[in-house]
This record gives sequence, C-alpha cells and structure tokens, in this order.
Amino acid sequence: MVVPMKPAQQKRSRTEVQLAPMPRSVTLLGATGSIGSSTIDLLRREPELYRVEAVTANRSAAALARLARELGARFAAVGDPAAYNELKSELSGSGIEAAAGPESLVEAAQRPADWVMAAITGAASLKPTLAAAERGAWVAIANKECLVCAGALFMRRAAAAGATVLPVDSEHNAIFQALASGRREEVRRVILTASGGPFRTSSLEQIRKVTVEQALKHPTWEMGPKVTIDSATLMNKGLELIEAHHLFALRPEELDVVVHPQSVVHGLVEFRDGSVIAQLGSPDMRIPISHCLGWPTRITTPAPRLDLAKVGSLTFEEPDPVRFPALALARRALAAGGGAPTVLNAANEIAVREFVDRRLGFTGIPALVEATLNAADRRGVMKEPQSVEEAVEIDHNSRRLAADLLPEIAAMAS
Amino acid sequence: MVVPMKPAQQKRSRTEVQLAPMPRSVTLLGATGSIGSSTIDLLRREPELYRVEAVTANRSAAALARLARELGARFAAVGDPAAYNELKSELSGSGIEAAAGPESLVEAAQRPADWVMAAITGAASLKPTLAAAERGAWVAIANKECLVCAGALFMRRAAAAGATVLPVDSEHNAIFQALASGRREEVRRVILTASGGPFRTSSLEQIRKVTVEQALKHPTWEMGPKVTIDSATLMNKGLELIEAHHLFALRPEELDVVVHPQSVVHGLVEFRDGSVIAQLGSPDMRIPISHCLGWPTRITTPAPRLDLAKVGSLTFEEPDPVRFPALALARRALAAGGGAPTVLNAANEIAVREFVDRRLGFTGIPALVEATLNAADRRGVMKEPQSVEEAVEIDHNSRRLAADLLPEIAAMAS
Repeated sequence: MVVPMKPAQQKRSRTEVQLAPMPRSVTLLGATGSIGSSTIDLLRREPELYRVEAVTANRSAAALARLARELGARFAAVGDPAAYNELKSELSGSGIEAAAGPESLVEAAQRPADWVMAAITGAASLKPTLAAAERGAWVAIANKECLVCAGALFMRRAAAAGATVLPVDSEHNAIFQALASGRREEVRRVILTASGGPFRTSSLEQIRKVTVEQALKHPTWEMGPKVTIDSATLMNKGLELIEAHHLFALRPEELDVVVHPQSVVHGLVEFRDGSVIAQLGSPDMRIPISHCLGWPTRITTPAPRLDLAKVGSLTFEEPDPVRFPALALARRALAAGGGAPTVLNAANEIAVREFVDRRLGFTGIPALVEATLNAADRRGVMKEPQSVEEAVEIDHNSRRLAADLLPEIAAMAS
Repeated sequence: MVVPMKPAQQKRSRTEVQLAPMPRSVTLLGATGSIGSSTIDLLRREPELYRVEAVTANRSAAALARLARELGARFAAVGDPAAYNELKSELSGSGIEAAAGPESLVEAAQRPADWVMAAITGAASLKPTLAAAERGAWVAIANKECLVCAGALFMRRAAAAGATVLPVDSEHNAIFQALASGRREEVRRVILTASGGPFRTSSLEQIRKVTVEQALKHPTWEMGPKVTIDSATLMNKGLELIEAHHLFALRPEELDVVVHPQSVVHGLVEFRDGSVIAQLGSPDMRIPISHCLGWPTRITTPAPRLDLAKVGSLTFEEPDPVRFPALALARRALAAGGGAPTVLNAANEIAVREFVDRRLGFTGIPALVEATLNAADRRGVMKEPQSVEEAVEIDHNSRRLAADLLPEIAAMAS
C-alpha cells in the first residue's frame, strides 16, 4: 500500500528505543499468580523466542520449582524464607539456583533479563520492580503499588536508567496502544473505562446495606477479593487514574473516567483533532500481556476474538460521585500529590480488609479513606517519598492511622 | 513519560516519508463542494501554515473566484469551459490565473503543491487525481471513483511516483488512524462500520415498496442524493470495501463490515494479538480532513467533542445479506477484480439515477447491478484497466449495458 505508516516517532523518552535481541530473555516476578500464569501460557506457545532467566513466587515453592524446571530458568526465588528448603529440595539436581527472602526477589530482578514481568502484589513489589527499572530493563508493570505509592520516584528512576515501562493492566495497556496513533502534545484527554461494578444501578440506600457476598460478585472479570471490592467502590478506577498520571505524564485534568459495564472498550484517547482512538478486546489478560511481551511487535495470541455484532451493545455513562465517592477521593489524592496517593492506597487496603472481615460497612470504605486523608493532611505527613523506604514508611503510618480511625468510622457508617 | 512510542515504523511503501516543508502549499481540486468547504474552514484557522497554489470547481465560477481571492491562490480552474468567461472576469485584476476545461483541472493538479485535496466527484476526478499522484504529491483522496474504477492502476502509479495517499473518507481515515497502532503483517482484519441506512429495521416487504422520499432521508449524515441512496442500499459500504482493499492492500477475506447505526465508531482494525483499535468521533468531516491536512501531525479542529456518556449506547449488528444484497455484489466484484468494480460502480450509478427518477424500484437497484455484472461477465469485458482511458471506457460500456438491461429489470422489480 502507498499509505505509509507514521514516520519515526518523535522521541518520547530520554532513551532511544532499541529492539531487544531475539530470543528475548525474560524474568517473571510473581510467576505463580494469575498474571504470571498467563505470561507463561504465552511463552509456552513460542518457546524458541524466549529464554527464562529468573522466576519468583511468594511462598508456592513446589509450583515455582515446577515452572522453573519447565521453563529452563537459571534462578528461582521465594519471598518467604520459610519456603527455602522446599524450593531447594524441589530444584535439586536441576542446576537451577534457589534463593529465598525479600532480597532474593531483588536479586531476581537484577539478573540480566531483557524483559521483566513485575507481577508481585502489594508493597513487596516495590524494591524488585524498582531494581529491574534501575538497570534499564523493559519492565512490564502489573502491580499497582509501584505507581500508586512511589509513582514519581519510580518513573524518575526508570527514565534515568533508560528503562522502558510497559503497562500490563488492561486499561493502561489500552491507552498505551491508543497513544500510538498520535504524539503526546496532540493528546487532549485520556479516558479510562470502568465496569461500574455490581452496584452500578443500586440506590444509595441499597449501597449502604451491601454485604460482603454481594460485593465479591463481579460482573465481568474474575479477580481476587481486594480488586473485586475496589471495582465495586470504584476505588480501583481511582487508583488507575493515579497510575495513568505517572505512566503517561498526564495532568489530572487530562484524565477522565467513563462507566462502561460491558468492559469491551478498555481505554480511549481523545486527540486535539477530535479523533478518539480506543482499544477494544475480549476480557483476556493474555492480550495486554502479549502486547508488553512482544512490544513493539504484536504477537499472535489465542485470546477469543471480539465479535461486536455478538456483543450487540456497548453502553457508557458518567460515574456517579454521590454513590461512588472513591473516585473523587483518588482525584483529591492525585491533585495533592506527594504522599497522598500512598495514604489513599494504604487506608483503602485497611478499609477493604475490615469490610471483608465484616467490621466495616461498604460505605465505610470511602469514609475511612477520607478520614485518613484528612488526618494525614492535618498532620502534614503527605510529602513526596524520596525512596522506597520512605514510601513504605508512609504506607505503614497510614495503615496505623486508618486503624486508629476505624472504630469511629465503623460506628458512624453502620 | 518513560513509556516510549513505537520506534521507527517498518517501511510500508517504497518511499521514505518526508515531512513537507512548512508552510505547506496546498491545492484544492473541488474547492466549492462540501469537502472543499470543510478543508477551507481548516485552512482559514491557521492561514500562516498554508499557501494555496490552485483551486478548482466544476462550474461555480463566482464562488471559486471568491475563494481564490480570499485564499491567495495562484491558479483557478473550472471544469466546464462555458464557465471560463465568468471566472476570468471575476478574477480580473487579481493576478490569479484563470483556466477552464477538463485539461485545466489536470493542470491544477500538476502545479507544484505539497498537498492536494482530491475532492472532484465522479469520473472527472480520475485524470486530475492521478496527475497529482504521478508527480509524487501527498494526495488526500476524497473521491470514490479513482479507487473503485482504477484502484490498482492508481495505487501502482502513486507508489511508483512516491506519492502519499491519505484517505479522507471517515471510514478509511479511521482505519488509517487505527493502523498506526501496529504493522501491516500484524493486521488480522479491518472492519468498516455502516450506519445501516434508513431501512435497517425494515422488512423485505417494506423495502420493496421504498419511495425516493423515504430513501433520501438519511439518519445520521447529511449527504448528496447519490451517497444517501448508496447508504440506504449498503452499496456505499460495498464500494468502500473495494476502496479499502486498494488503499491498504488488504485481501477480501481481511475486510469485514459491521452495522453500527450511531455512526460514532468509524472503523476498526483487529490485530493478531486480539486487540481491536477503533477510531471514534463526532460526525464532522473536519476531523478526517484535518488528519490528512496535518498528517503526520494532528492539528486542532473545532469539531464537537465526542461525549460517550451522552451518546449512551453504541450498537452493532451483522449486515443482512437478504435485505441488502449490494454488499455481496461488491464482494463479488472485489473477488473478480479486473474491471468488475468499475462495472459495479457504473451500473449502480445508472440504477440510482433511475430510482431517483422513479423509473426503477428500490430493490431494482441491486437487481440492475447484478444483471449488469452477469452480462459483463458473459461478454468477458472485465479485464483490468491499464489506463484512465480504459477505465473510462469500461465505465461507459457498463453504463450502456445497464441502460440496455434496465427495462427488463424495472419490469421484474416493480
């Protein structure tokens, strides 16, 4: 065809993009979880294209050893030191190095793989993910904590090291794909889609009485309890706003959310000419993972093909700030910057845990987050973390603060 | 941000893409029509970025002269020689060269403008559009005839001259935009959206009785009668399949159509990873025109911003081959190749004219097209046109053939 593709893109980062040599060496931080499993499913399809350097898990030593053997990994590490002996014995005779403890996860990240899947959940992800970025790797980022709790720090260090940060989350990956149709300065707005959760059409009265069982039923994706509850409160989307802000260097006013219950459109970018570019797809995480794994090439996946005529209808609505205050809280934390998103995230983790353990009502979740943000604000503890240690400290302090505020909020919201 | 854009695209044409020097010199072939007017609206917003070389019209000499003066054009031409004196007198004292006749349109196209809007309608567009492409210009193509009647010829000559062909049509422009998210070999399927026209939900019985008045009411876009009728029969989408085949070098089986009554999603590209990239926007032709005008940069337009929550619902359905046989006829012509698309287009033009003049029923339109294709097939006159003259000859012969078949079809379909 004569219609050419866009010429060489303007540089968007301080580093030139280099095609990694093939076969690409990969490390999987969090190999036994859902994202790790989907990644391995893709690796298995074209084993000649990849060489596995390291794999890690939290404590599933036997499963990790099986994977390490199958994939021919050189290094396997479990975060929990108590799992070391099992890992060691399961790997005996394989020639695969075994290690354990938090520092072994960092070591895994530091080993020389071209591409690292950062899929460790929780605060334990911070150091290993940062370690991968700091050596200039291509980091497929599948955990929220790095960007929510230490986003500015993480992106700054990644840029300084010439790392390439690839977003795995379906919404951010969609935006990453859509951004390829233009240049940064041509972007008017980025729109994240939210399923709206199971209470999208519930009244405020009904939402006040939501049970744990009701909240754990998610209409579209099958996910862990934390993310499921976050989807029900829309806090998940609030955290994603913060992530998008860091990933794509977008100002808060350039970020928007639209509720889209079918979860077929994963994200949209509005350009200054009025064009809106969207990424759509079946709800199969192998699509965004493959986009990161093959990037800048698209690889074939076995994900179900999207059949729009079969889907029939895609609907969109504004999120309701009255029934779902979490989004506004996240925007507040995003606008405040500094440590505020870390406070938000920590307070939300406590609130969700307390809700799941039936010590806090559903509307108590945003109430506890708001109270914690207010208290942290009054105490002036919202400064920007300058290190992982500082981020972890803000996280810990915020959890304590939220725990302290819990009885009062639980009483009010019940 | 650290997430980089895609590195230099693989070469997709035989020529390297060159950024045209700014200000960009532009020529408007068909300056007084709807596409010409929208283009001029964009030029007026940033006059310092453009220098107008030539403008043409069919016979609206006074309007053309006004535009030529306002835009500071160097050359103005009318296709109709009878309009020459009026143009000459309206331009007197302006220093703008006036010309008339079909050859003057070719001359306008040949003058050294970086960018040419090819918005002349009908067969008259063939020679001027080809002339612009053959001197290696950036040609924004807004007429169907070049691609439908002489697509292989046009794209071959454009490629040989190093021309850049930019699609103006909202559907093809959408696909052009979506294709930027990947490489040609990563494309699994390209999907054109069709509004479905005013008879999308009508029964076959109702469609048989459709009046001209009913057919001329188009639900979304305001267009001329020919395109409006083509939208009602879905022949418009059939012709667009043929255009997309040539523009993007897509095989027939890589091309699909989905009915989408809201006309918000203009086109989609499915990649091999399962990602579907779509371009959406308000129904404002300034969006695709601006994309061609600024390409590879996106320029700001005053087009209404898309508000998905306000739109509410986007629906999709399969086109019905029984009620709308035009799509299958176009696919047949596409598969046959050679002169078949030219026969299809010519027969359809006759059929639509006869329908609008109330000498043929609505279902007689595809019936006449099919009969003409059958007859042309039997006579073996479907060879690939090797020149504009040959394409025009196939066109003329097909019109005669359709006219000969008309009485019989009109009698059958009434």
